[in-house]
Parts: sequence; C-alpha cells; structure tokens
Amino acid sequence: MRSKLFVPGVRPELFAKALASAADAISIDLVDAGPADRKAEARAAVAAFLASEAARATPKLIIVRVNALDSAHFEADLQALAGLQSLDLINLPKPESAADIRAAIAALQAAGLPETVKLLANIETPTALRRAHEIAQADPRVAGLQLGLGDLFEPYGIARRDPANVHAALFAVALAAAEAGVFCCDGAFADLKDDEGFRAEARMARALGFIGKSCIHPSQIAAANEVFQPGAGELAHARRVVEAAAAAGAQGRGAFVVDGKMIDLPFLKRAQALLAAAGVESTDAAR
Amino acid sequence: MRSKLFVPGVRPELFAKALASAADAISIDLVDAGPADRKAEARAAVAAFLASEAARATPKLIIVRVNALDSAHFEADLQALAGLQSLDLINLPKPESAADIRAAIAALQAAGLPETVKLLANIETPTALRRAHEIAQADPRVAGLQLGLGDLFEPYGIARRDPANVHAALFAVALAAAEAGVFCCDGAFADLKDDEGFRAEARMARALGFIGKSCIHPSQIAAANEVFQPGAGELAHARRVVEAAAAAGAQGRGAFVVDGKMIDLPFLKRAQALLAAAGVESTDAAR
Amino acid sequence: MRSKLFVPGVRPELFAKALASAADAISIDLVDAGPADRKAEARAAVAAFLASEAARATPKLIIVRVNALDSAHFEADLQALAGLQSLDLINLPKPESAADIRAAIAALQAAGLPETVKLLANIETPTALRRAHEIAQADPRVAGLQLGLGDLFEPYGIARRDPANVHAALFAVALAAAEAGVFCCDGAFADLKDDEGFRAEARMARALGFIGKSCIHPSQIAAANEVFQPGAGELAHARRVVEAAAAAGAQGRGAFVVDGKMIDLPFLKRAQALLAAAGVESTDAAR
Repeated sequence: MRSKLFVPGVRPELFAKALASAADAISIDLVDAGPADRKAEARAAVAAFLASEAARATPKLIIVRVNALDSAHFEADLQALAGLQSLDLINLPKPESAADIRAAIAALQAAGLPETVKLLANIETPTALRRAHEIAQADPRVAGLQLGLGDLFEPYGIARRDPANVHAALFAVALAAAEAGVFCCDGAFADLKDDEGFRAEARMARALGFIGKSCIHPSQIAAANEVFQPGAGELAHARRVVEAAAAAGAQGRGAFVVDGKMIDLPFLKRAQALLAAAGVESTDAAR
Repeated sequence: MRSKLFVPGVRPELFAKALASAADAISIDLVDAGPADRKAEARAAVAAFLASEAARATPKLIIVRVNALDSAHFEADLQALAGLQSLDLINLPKPESAADIRAAIAALQAAGLPETVKLLANIETPTALRRAHEIAQADPRVAGLQLGLGDLFEPYGIARRDPANVHAALFAVALAAAEAGVFCCDGAFADLKDDEGFRAEARMARALGFIGKSCIHPSQIAAANEVFQPGAGELAHARRVVEAAAAAGAQGRGAFVVDGKMIDLPFLKRAQALLAAAGVESTDAAR
Repeated sequence: MRSKLFVPGVRPELFAKALASAADAISIDLVDAGPADRKAEARAAVAAFLASEAARATPKLIIVRVNALDSAHFEADLQALAGLQSLDLINLPKPESAADIRAAIAALQAAGLPETVKLLANIETPTALRRAHEIAQADPRVAGLQLGLGDLFEPYGIARRDPANVHAALFAVALAAAEAGVFCCDGAFADLKDDEGFRAEARMARALGFIGKSCIHPSQIAAANEVFQPGAGELAHARRVVEAAAAAGAQGRGAFVVDGKMIDLPFLKRAQALLAAAGVESTDAAR
C-alpha cells in the first residue's frame, strides 16, 4: 500500500476514476462528507460502489473511513457496510485506547461486517500517540496504524511542517506498530503544490518502516509510489529470507542465516510484508 | 506569557524593576534564595511585595517559585503566601508523579492560598519527563508545565545545548501539555551573551506550541516577547474561530468550519488561549 | 568503559589479543558462537579463560554475552560461569520487561555466580525500548543498559543509519538509564570501513551521556576511546564535586555549590562515575 487515495463519499463520480488511478489503495471518506444530511447519501453511494463488479474485481485495497466511535454516525456507517466482501479495511478516526478499539471491533461484529475486514486505526491525538502500542495490540483485527499529523499537532500550535516534530511523531508510531507486528502508514499532506515537501515527508516515513502515504489528490500518487517502492535488492533479499524460512521449517530447524544475517521472526514477517506489498505472493516465492 | 522574568526573593530592590519591565510574567524565587537562614527573609520580602498596591494592580502574571515538596521549606513558603490575592501561580520544582501534585495541592489548601492560585509544575527530572502527562492531568489546578533542561540533563551528562536533545525533551512536554489541555512554558537559558542561542531555543519551543520562555535576566525579555508574539494572521484566525463557536453555540450546532477547516474543541481552546495570551478577551472577540 | 571489544567465544586464540588491546572492556560472546554444537566448546573456552591468571589480573572489565533467557542455552551458559571471580558483567540479550530481568537474576543466583557479577541489559526490541526504565530499575544488580540498534530497527524496515532514528533511540535509553541511576553504553557499528560514521554515532551517544561504545573489531577501539574520553576540565570539575561532597558531609550539610552550581545527588553520582571511568578512585579524589 504505497499510495492510498482519499475520495469523498459524497462524490461517487470519482470512485471509478480512483479505481483507474495508480493508487494501491482507495479510501472512501464518510467523515468530511459534508453536512450531516448528506451522510446518508454518502453511505448509500459507498455501499452501491462496494457491491459493484468493479469494486469486487479490483486488486486495490478498499478502505472506508467511518465517522468517529463517539459520533452519532458511527453505527449507521457500519450498518451500511454490512456483508460487503469487497471492503478490506475500516479506517477508524481518533481511537485513544485499547477500549476504544475493542468497542469498534464489537460494533463491526454487531453490524455483520465480514471477518476479513480489518481495522486501520488513526493515531491523531496526543493521548493516542502515547498509547499507540496499546491501540495497535488491542485486537488481532487491527491491521495497521495511520498517523494523522494535522489533528495531532495543529490544535496545540505544534508546527505541522517542522521536520523534527514530524520525525518524533513518526518514530513513536513506527515503534508502536513494530511492537504489535502491524503495518504503519503515513497520513495526508495538504499542500498540493509542494511536491518536494510531500516527497521529503514520505522519505522520512519510509526510513521509519512506513509502507505508504495517504494522497488527498491523484497528483500525489506517483510520488508516493516512487518513494515507497521497495528496491530490487530489497525484494530479492526478502525472497531469500522467505525461501530459507520454508527450507528451515521443512528441516525442523528454527534459526537460519540469510546474506550473513541471523534471521528471526520479526525479519521473516517484514520480508513477507514486503513481498505482499510488492504484489508477490510469499508462498510463491517460497516454492 | 511570552516572557517570564526570574527575580531572586532575597533581592526585593529588583521587584519594582521587574514590574516595570516588558516581561509578561515575573517569577520570584524562594529556592536559590541563598543560605537557609535567608529563606525567612526572602519569604517576608515576597509577602510584603505581593500585598503591595503595585503587585495588586499589575496586569503581569505573578509567580512564586517555592522550595521543593520534600524540602523543609515548602510548607513555610506556602504559609507566607496565604491569602495574597495578587499571586497567580505557584511554580513547583521537581514533582515526579500525580501523587506529588496532589500533595502540593493539598498543601496549598491547607495553607489557605486562594483557589485562584494555580500550579505551574516543573518537568526537570527523567522520571517527571516520562510521567509528564500524568503530572499535567493530576489536578485541575495544574495550569501549565515548565521544562527545566539544566536539571533534567546536566546531572546525567546529557548535553544541554544539543538541539536534538532539547527538541526531544520539548516534544515530550508539548504532547503531555496538549493531552492535559494545559499550557507549556520553556525554561531558562544560562548564557546571557548568546542572544542567537536563546532565540533558536525559543523558536524551537514556539514551533512546539510553547507559549513563552523563562528569562534569567531582563536582557532576554525582548527576544522572548518577539519570538512568542502571535502573528496578526494567527490572531485574526483565532478571533474567527471564537466568533464561529459562539454563533454555532447560539444555533445549537456542535461542529463548524472556519477558514476551510473543521473546528473542534482542541482548536477552540487553542484559539481562546492565543487571544488570552495576546491580551484580547475572547468574550470580547466573540461579541 | 569507553570501548568494549567483542570477541567470539569460539575464537579463544583472540582472547589474549583482546586483553592486550586498548579496549576498556572485553565482551566474549556465546550467542553468535556459531552452530549449536559449538556452543559447548565456546562455553568451555570462556570458562578456561576466565579462570586464567591473565583474566584475573587484568584491569579491564570482563563481560560475557550469554544466550537469550528464553533459549535452551541460557542456563548452560550460566552454569559454565559459576564461581568465576574475574567475570564482571553478564550481557543479557533481548530482555523485554522487569520480569525478564528478575528471572535472569534468579538464574544467576541459582547457577552460583558471584554477587559481584552485575547485569548489562540490552535494549534491542521495540517493547524493550518502551519499557527501558522498568528494565533498568528491575533489580539493583542491573548495572547498565546497552542499545542494540540492528535488532531494534532492521526487522521493521527502520533505517539503522538515519541520524534522527538513531538519536530517538539513544535519547530513550539515556533517559531510562538516568532515571535508574545506571550507566548506558552504545551498541555496535557494522561498517568497519566507515570510521567517520562510527565517530559520528559515538559523539551523538556521548552527548547523551553514554559512557562508551561496542567495537566489533580492534580497529574501532581508538575512535571509541577518543570520543568517550572525558576532558581534563570535566574531570577537574568532577573532582571538585566529589571533594565538596566529602567536605559538606563532614560538616553535616546536605546542599553545596561547586563552580557556581547547586550540586545534588544526581550530579554527585555522575561525578563519581566519571572519575571511576577515568580510572581515578573517587575516594582518592575526595581525600
């Protein structure tokens, strides 16, 4: 998921365009959908799209950002998504604790969402940043963390574009995700004209193990795909790790060495994630 | 409180000068007052000053830094301050836990300090930095956090002037204050001849949402006032936020948009704090 | 312990060379000793070396890195070290909690290691970094923390050589060690040809109060000794602090001032540690 394109739920005319884009994932938004009386309209549009042949056939990840847990709209959002198999991830705004995550998971179950639908939890408040490890580990259905710097910083007068500030938040999320064994994904970058700024932030996230970045406009997709594209050497190494793990497993050995390095579980999981992100089935690679 | 001027409690001849200075706050010190036998003298001088017409009339914030909670002088310090309405904040050195804060608040009450007197808690030990969120949230009378880098770093051989070290501590305090909804204020800078060093540190603190910086000499006040002065655009935006909140409240609406941005409680609190810091009554602005 | 030279346990021919080197400490390794069937051989070689006259006479610190607590080799490693007085520190890989430390200490006692043998706990997983303060404070026999950046970062795709990443991890370990009153030591640097890279990382660690750095090859020792060598002014100040503490103690006073600075317990401990690291007995200095 190198790039994750944001699409407003009230603009269904953009859904097909988003599917045709180069983004690895599309994230349809029910939050900033506009006035409350258009929420229902957005929900209906998203449900129709998820049920469509196009959505069911796409190799892209399909994500829906629902309204916050404590809002009046959260349950209605989930109900609109019940039973839709093309949905991959629910993006949850502003959870602040493991309890919030467990409540969201219970709501997913109550609404009848398929078990295959996982949670992408936003880390976008100071409390959430402090408890990011707890949020990431609250339930096996948490698949990843996404950093939201605008909400995290701006209400408190913390400069959103200061690289040291950005790094400190990225680092905290990276370690929390690493601890939980989930992926982490960088949030949005508002200035559409500042391509270099977008790339600099994406490179910083990549150097912290993030797998991709949100794009609020299709013009940002190419840069995200470029920055987060794993290198050929990296993929080849990942393939050797997965192959060696399969061989060691077949021989009943636990530990093994690849490229002169002792490989343990965290390395193996990273290699599998890399290959999966690059569209290579790790089971294929291991054959 | 862009600038907070430090005045030794044993130098009462400096109190009037401090009031006449451009500092937004003055902080009279009972800690580094000198030998123990001069503590009583300092207390008497501070009490006399706080009772004076000048102290009662000044628009400046008046702060007294008392001796540490576990010292023999703490209670005597508080007793000397009982009933003095001109006092705004007690600056507490070296609290390390929520329990320390609660003990301090209990002592304030026992000594008969007015309810309007709030606490400014210093974050100046490694334990306090780790628990800064807990210290900030321990009691509603905690109004702010102040970072003390000398005490935090120097005993452990951590370079006080290294910008990366300084940023990491500032970031931790900024997030803890943000989480608690209290302000944060930067500590002192020892090298009086290094104006650029003072300004660089102040700018870093400002970019993390700190509202001001301690000054150990009047020569540092102008730089602090300059760096922490909110810009005209910033104040105008804050005024629009407060006005829109009043309008939305009057119409029974919760959410509203200002300058294209969805405004929620943290943004509103920041706007109110900015206007208050700039000497603009937010209720005026909202009219 | 400015420099800590790594020696594989299966290469006993290197032990004498290591003793003859300029390293302040040598760390014999039972982990990367090679295939499991050579572990026993490494153990025997290390035990023989520790019992030798040369090991008993050296002023260098002698450290043995044992296999991880949850491995089949951990207890056998400790049993091989029972009763050997020349051993100073057990270096424990991958503890993640206070409970891990307590289990390790219990195992040290069960195996009959002398009480003088302390623990050097590696911080080398994301969970350990989050709990570093807890690990450092779990038992008085924890003498220090050592940061392991390769294991901490690489499985998660976090760039090992990115200075901002390195600083964030060093800062967390420095504060945890400071809080516990134990030393901290920087880990290894793999690129033997990059002397400037080694020095840059060592300088960053030193500016965070680390006392030394691991060397995986004798060619790195000189740089480590140079970077972590306390300056003459620093040592002279430390000597004055220790002398003033002795004088104040003799007069029954608690607080005292050295070089214009109020000295409390953390400063005194740092001064004693500095003098000890520089080979000066602080009791001598205090005489």
